[in-house]
Amino acid sequence: MTAYRRLTARFARIGALGEAAGMLHWDASAMMPPGGGAARGEQLAALAGLRHDLLVAQDVSLDLAEAVAEGPWDQANLELMRHDHRRATALPTDLVEAVERANSACEKLWRQAKAAADFALVRPALTEVVKLQREVAQALGEALGMTPYDALMDGYQRGVTAADVEPVFAAYESWLAGALPKAEAIQARRGPALPLPGPFPVAAQRELCRAMAQVVGLDFAHARLDESLHPFCGGTPTDVRITTFYDESNVAKALLGVLHETGHAMYERGLPEAFARQPVGEAAGMAAHESQSLIVEMQACRSDAFLGFLGTRLHALAGGDPAPYAAANLGKLWRRVERGFIRVDADEMTYPAHVILRFKLERALIEGSLQVADLPEAWNSGLSRALGITPPNDALGCLQDIHWHDGAFGYFPSYTLGAMAAAQLMAALRRAEPDLDAQLARGDMAPMMRWLGEKVHSQGARLGFQDLLRAATGKPLDPADFTAHLTARYLTD
Amino acid sequence: MTAYRRLTARFARIGALGEAAGMLHWDASAMMPPGGGAARGEQLAALAGLRHDLLVAQDVSLDLAEAVAEGPWDQANLELMRHDHRRATALPTDLVEAVERANSACEKLWRQAKAAADFALVRPALTEVVKLQREVAQALGEALGMTPYDALMDGYQRGVTAADVEPVFAAYESWLAGALPKAEAIQARRGPALPLPGPFPVAAQRELCRAMAQVVGLDFAHARLDESLHPFCGGTPTDVRITTFYDESNVAKALLGVLHETGHAMYERGLPEAFARQPVGEAAGMAAHESQSLIVEMQACRSDAFLGFLGTRLHALAGGDPAPYAAANLGKLWRRVERGFIRVDADEMTYPAHVILRFKLERALIEGSLQVADLPEAWNSGLSRALGITPPNDALGCLQDIHWHDGAFGYFPSYTLGAMAAAQLMAALRRAEPDLDAQLARGDMAPMMRWLGEKVHSQGARLGFQDLLRAATGKPLDPADFTAHLTARYLTD
Repeated sequence: MTAYRRLTARFARIGALGEAAGMLHWDASAMMPPGGGAARGEQLAALAGLRHDLLVAQDVSLDLAEAVAEGPWDQANLELMRHDHRRATALPTDLVEAVERANSACEKLWRQAKAAADFALVRPALTEVVKLQREVAQALGEALGMTPYDALMDGYQRGVTAADVEPVFAAYESWLAGALPKAEAIQARRGPALPLPGPFPVAAQRELCRAMAQVVGLDFAHARLDESLHPFCGGTPTDVRITTFYDESNVAKALLGVLHETGHAMYERGLPEAFARQPVGEAAGMAAHESQSLIVEMQACRSDAFLGFLGTRLHALAGGDPAPYAAANLGKLWRRVERGFIRVDADEMTYPAHVILRFKLERALIEGSLQVADLPEAWNSGLSRALGITPPNDALGCLQDIHWHDGAFGYFPSYTLGAMAAAQLMAALRRAEPDLDAQLARGDMAPMMRWLGEKVHSQGARLGFQDLLRAATGKPLDPADFTAHLTARYLTD
Repeated sequence: MTAYRRLTARFARIGALGEAAGMLHWDASAMMPPGGGAARGEQLAALAGLRHDLLVAQDVSLDLAEAVAEGPWDQANLELMRHDHRRATALPTDLVEAVERANSACEKLWRQAKAAADFALVRPALTEVVKLQREVAQALGEALGMTPYDALMDGYQRGVTAADVEPVFAAYESWLAGALPKAEAIQARRGPALPLPGPFPVAAQRELCRAMAQVVGLDFAHARLDESLHPFCGGTPTDVRITTFYDESNVAKALLGVLHETGHAMYERGLPEAFARQPVGEAAGMAAHESQSLIVEMQACRSDAFLGFLGTRLHALAGGDPAPYAAANLGKLWRRVERGFIRVDADEMTYPAHVILRFKLERALIEGSLQVADLPEAWNSGLSRALGITPPNDALGCLQDIHWHDGAFGYFPSYTLGAMAAAQLMAALRRAEPDLDAQLARGDMAPMMRWLGEKVHSQGARLGFQDLLRAATGKPLDPADFTAHLTARYLTD
């Protein structure tokens, strides 16, 4: 057996353990009774420990040094194996253990601090988390030949650096400063939306959500739709598990949420089967993944064309006066711009402002130019500059997200990179499919999903973020398609 | 760290992988969409392979040779580690792989052979399976110092041998020859049962089954009840997963099935937490497990006392004429003796005859005194001698069970050992709890479950089958308690 074949056998095992862990995570959120938590923790820790052991073993170093791969896919696979191995071996065991302890302690205190809106409760623990993340970033950066912050970003989205992101985000910030007041003025002129009558019984919502996931193309012979407190997409490419949360007074929550998760699910479903459980057979990263949920939810399904289709289906279900279900009214309801404190509730125009603030702050924390003690003040003044509003307390400010308090630095940019990539892919798709709006208007998403399947899903992790965009759209990340999309949707009267 | 502590850390990891596999098995039966099967196979194979690797590693031999344990629990745990290691290292890798291939090929052909009632279709594959199982039995027997067949039985139920089983089964056979015609005559004199009116909607059955599992003592903070084609109990001790299958025309199927699985679940729930994921913290074996499902389902819940309680609950749910729900009528319906071809449909009196036939035949196959080609004839003449009926074809004969066709030899005795142990434990429990019938009549199973918790569940795998019975009832396996139970239930007019 060649060194490369030994490696693919080993990584297939690592991949299978990762799939098992994915299923157990899904189960923990969607199925597990509360008493199962402690044992589940042991199971996941054992799986993570064994994956790490398999990845850092001496044999892997020897085989990686010797291995030769033929063809672009196997070459990319081998490169990713080297990359994974480098990341896994860069950190000394005692640092990894200190990080796990610090993250776990901080996350618990964060829950109390957020509930009490008292940053002081979590400040010492977060200071320790940041200190350790700086060490992690330093060590990973040296091993990978990257700046420390780029090495953290690389853990979530390979193939894009802070130097790529910074001008893109800066351009967006200055565009938004002019665009947001205009969008608000236009919105005010358009007048209020008619509310949707309710309630929508859960059973009917469940059927509608399933039907809409099928409209996008999800095959329930390879998928499930269940319920969990925080909706997500998990599972494996041949067995995707999406979840949602039903609110009888607000059908949009589950419906648009399921369309979002179905975008993620379709990416998983379309990954190259020939490289299942190999590094190159995985998705290209978090930003690439978010581009697929957002192109389905935000670009396609909130378009006028698709809202016409969706409104007809909704009205058929609910009956009564058809007026609230007209596409124009659904657009007013579901495409409302609003300056708010909370990222996860933000509309697509202000969402990037929340992300850009976090990107600047977390980068400064990692680079050492911002101290944890100064975070609340930096947050509040940053939000005030970006959106002209100041959080009345830290629960609505720097305590709102779990990420940093659980040691996740370098993740936030992915959300906005995904949104921008979705717009860029949509613009390229519109060039390839001039009839797209007519297709969406009749609920025909097959041509769109075929194009995404070819350009994104089936590419696996062969290309990094910028290269994937280049191959699919002819250029690296360019915020112009995103601002053009927002201009058409929010700034055109 | 001492050698023993190194071993407990390793076996905790092995145990956690086993729990993960258990959850994935449950998911495959109760949740997984059909398209997930192939990937699930990869995940389970990776987990099984890693568990095996962890168990046979050179370090384990060295630590087992050096380890010293203090106290009866740790000593028993160390002994079980040695036993597991001996079993895992006894078989050469090429034999294990040949067995897996042969079992998998035979199981597929068996499905066709059973559907076509054509033994010839599976005969060559089964011949190969038996040949390999004889090699396995030989190798395990040498490693463990047991006869070959005992070494196979040991894989399902430690601490009982064919020499223990043979006289017990022989005594039952001769008792049954006289008892069965008498039971049939008494049953005929008692006249037919009133049928239960139906249908019972699935939602109502589900609620009733949940309520009855709670009556037995199952805490749904640590358990789930779901649906699968073949009901079973899976999961882990702090997160037990039982399943059932609802038939709206026959409420007894799910109801008695759930009571059976709840008996299994209560065993898992009661295992010693201090030894979670250690060999000594597991159940004592398949026969011990079956004793716990049968003492709940057959001994307690089909008793006149509990049927009175259950009938009242059922009638409250269904309404209408109360007569069919009287305890005496439910007894006629759910305790009906009948000579049949199919083991899984058999009543508690004739069930052992099916098992004893299989025990004799599988032992003869392993010892070489019976050839696969002669199996159908041996089966049919054996059933004819035992129950006076002859299967009209092999689908109703030697093709009915999957076990042998999937390489499981030595398993069948566990069913009847479990039934007999259940009666023996019930007799001891009745001595300890003279008010048992009054408790059951009001649906109070707490004293019974407390006693089983103390005598069986909390003992884990500290004792083998015979020793467990000795400690709980004062004697090793004795079929007299089982025949006394049957005499009281079926032979007393």
